[in-house]
Amino acid sequence: MIYDNLAVNEKGHLTFAGYDTVELAEKYGTPLYLMDEDKIRQRVREYKKAMSDFMPQGSVPEFASKAFSCRQIYRIMAEEGIDIDIVSVGELYTAVTAGFPMERAFFHGNNKTDSDIEFAIENGVGYFVVDNEDELYAVDRCASKRGVVQKILLRVTPGIDPHTHKKISTGSVESKFGIAIGTGQAEETVLKALDLENIELCGYHCHIGSQIFDAEPFHTASEIMLKFIADIKDKYGYSPDMLNLGGGLGVRYVESEPEIDYYGELRKIAETIKKQCAQLQLDMPKILTEPGRSLVGDSGITLYTVGSVKEIKGYKNYVSVDGGMTDNPRYTLYESPYTVILASRPEDKKDFTATVAGRCCESGDLIQEDVAMPRPERGEILAVLTTGAYNYSMASNYNRIPRPPVVMLNSERDYIAVKRETLEDICRLDV
Amino acid sequence: MIYDNLAVNEKGHLTFAGYDTVELAEKYGTPLYLMDEDKIRQRVREYKKAMSDFMPQGSVPEFASKAFSCRQIYRIMAEEGIDIDIVSVGELYTAVTAGFPMERAFFHGNNKTDSDIEFAIENGVGYFVVDNEDELYAVDRCASKRGVVQKILLRVTPGIDPHTHKKISTGSVESKFGIAIGTGQAEETVLKALDLENIELCGYHCHIGSQIFDAEPFHTASEIMLKFIADIKDKYGYSPDMLNLGGGLGVRYVESEPEIDYYGELRKIAETIKKQCAQLQLDMPKILTEPGRSLVGDSGITLYTVGSVKEIKGYKNYVSVDGGMTDNPRYTLYESPYTVILASRPEDKKDFTATVAGRCCESGDLIQEDVAMPRPERGEILAVLTTGAYNYSMASNYNRIPRPPVVMLNSERDYIAVKRETLEDICRLDV
Repeated sequence: MIYDNLAVNEKGHLTFAGYDTVELAEKYGTPLYLMDEDKIRQRVREYKKAMSDFMPQGSVPEFASKAFSCRQIYRIMAEEGIDIDIVSVGELYTAVTAGFPMERAFFHGNNKTDSDIEFAIENGVGYFVVDNEDELYAVDRCASKRGVVQKILLRVTPGIDPHTHKKISTGSVESKFGIAIGTGQAEETVLKALDLENIELCGYHCHIGSQIFDAEPFHTASEIMLKFIADIKDKYGYSPDMLNLGGGLGVRYVESEPEIDYYGELRKIAETIKKQCAQLQLDMPKILTEPGRSLVGDSGITLYTVGSVKEIKGYKNYVSVDGGMTDNPRYTLYESPYTVILASRPEDKKDFTATVAGRCCESGDLIQEDVAMPRPERGEILAVLTTGAYNYSMASNYNRIPRPPVVMLNSERDYIAVKRETLEDICRLDV
Repeated sequence: MIYDNLAVNEKGHLTFAGYDTVELAEKYGTPLYLMDEDKIRQRVREYKKAMSDFMPQGSVPEFASKAFSCRQIYRIMAEEGIDIDIVSVGELYTAVTAGFPMERAFFHGNNKTDSDIEFAIENGVGYFVVDNEDELYAVDRCASKRGVVQKILLRVTPGIDPHTHKKISTGSVESKFGIAIGTGQAEETVLKALDLENIELCGYHCHIGSQIFDAEPFHTASEIMLKFIADIKDKYGYSPDMLNLGGGLGVRYVESEPEIDYYGELRKIAETIKKQCAQLQLDMPKILTEPGRSLVGDSGITLYTVGSVKEIKGYKNYVSVDGGMTDNPRYTLYESPYTVILASRPEDKKDFTATVAGRCCESGDLIQEDVAMPRPERGEILAVLTTGAYNYSMASNYNRIPRPPVVMLNSERDYIAVKRETLEDICRLDV
């Protein structure tokens, strides 16, 4: 199987993290998100160890919680002792009420309102990742009002051509995020930041994109960022404490994609940065990374119950499930690949090819096209793998469909991290 | 302006349905969905009158509530005396608890579970629009268990080539919806339905797609459907009471799209059906239509507050607002066009061109590209038009961003139809 936490038990059912998926579907109902807590912790430790082994003291991963945000995940990250990246007051509030130590939180986003900024300062957020000048002044103003000096990183765009690295577009000059190095605007903003009384500029941040399968694009990013650091140092004497290289290491969704050795790739990134620093005669700053998908993506699967099975003679087949774009909008948004397994009978002959469709009244509501599987019957359980990132967090109530619960699995127990939404929940804001 | 319910008042602010949008933004906060209740009622009456003027008695529009579902909209449709189309138990529950008379509800969807079917029968849903054979038998089984005869329509796919009519894809043979006429499967299912004891087959349903700007594609659809009706009648003597032609008439999002005369287009559809029936020597069945977007789309606008304004020298400009793909995912899903107006100063010179971006940490989170407007300042109000359909209903909590409220406006008052989601709401299912 594609992951080592999948197997088939004596009943012929798919198991995940050692649990019988068909039994979990019966116990909790479907659709159902499952998360392998032990695997999440293992991934976090891999990142943490690589960064501690190969990078300067204080280098640490931040969990990019937009990939999967709920109280329990912040508790797990707090226990593992890593930082978090939050992108809204909603994530901030979730983390605060989960007891996460907010001095270890980095507040991201391209458009923080004044009230967001005030809320974050009140709650003792460690760092703002300041996206633009409007925000820089707003943070200074709010910090001044509260009589504090607020630590920040500046988000800059290294200007990596998105045409060179497909799907790597957030680091391009034209991105909605950050301040461009290439236009000279990043330099101008650094000077302004250094001048502000209630701002402490601690470093720079960049993010080049996502689903990157090796270290190479990060070498380009770190080269540009370190060159920028050296330029600013030469001109103005300012050296940052931290360099945040963002997230982006990928996750293997299907067998045709490579398996990623995160520890090994982080080592390569570290070694390159060391060399680049030596060439530029720079002390290596603390390195931060922002893994989201790669900490939780392949720790999650979704279980569905099969409903109608449709064979359109001479055309194609459909297997409809009791979820779809409402719990996993990634196929309809990006045509993302997924591995689909008939959890009830994973070892039966895959002699049926079908498009797995959701239940929404929308023709684009598909989970995956042309999946080979045993011909399923109404009522059987289907598993979609690698749904730990950007599934629950992107879920909607389109068609007024309630969102599934999130059940965590570890070696000791299965437990609910997020409860199933009810029909009453769906209507509770309706007058 | 593009709609007659938009104007500019003496303060130079955009007004909508007679209300000052800047004042509404202050009163209710942003982001804010506004709906012009009077315009919704006017559109409903236009449909209802055309269908009553030109079609057999009992012909009526059903509001396709997936476009915009909340309790208040069902109350409005009940008052206006039209039917509704619901696609889930979530919509069903919302309508029931709003007091909508359920005998006037049509239950759609490509994948109803047994428990959905039982819930709908218990709640006295008028008609099931049966999508496939699995469902046909499931409805019969559940109806039998409750000792009732359940009225149904059969959803068939007329097989209109989606390559001929761009964006009209749900009526194609390969659609996930319905049973194909072309493969002979629809005919087989009709015979099975007529044989079942707890099923009363009342007619057929088809839906050819959406954003259709004139009657022409409906002529093709009705031709195929009536031919099917005539064939079945000739062979088996069965004539349906109803023909449901689905939805699909478009809405004008931008000035380059035509204004649609719904009354006129429905008349053309009716006249064509009359002729087609005469040629086939059929009595014209009751006609049903399922307008969703065209009843509510251009009755809604969204107000945002401008946050950061970013000028990337030599590249492009961004205006970031305090909402985005979480309250309006249609640009990121379909690159849908929208008209954007700086509500604070709609008449100032539009000498600034910018991409309007949302606040999500996702580079695809845009509302519209290359919008000409006066250069806005942080804190000004921006209006995005034609957001009445598929905005609130498709909204998510991605990035844990709370969903905006829906405020209804009529000639007498402004009132909240859906309350603003709070941070506490966002976390209430978290353990």
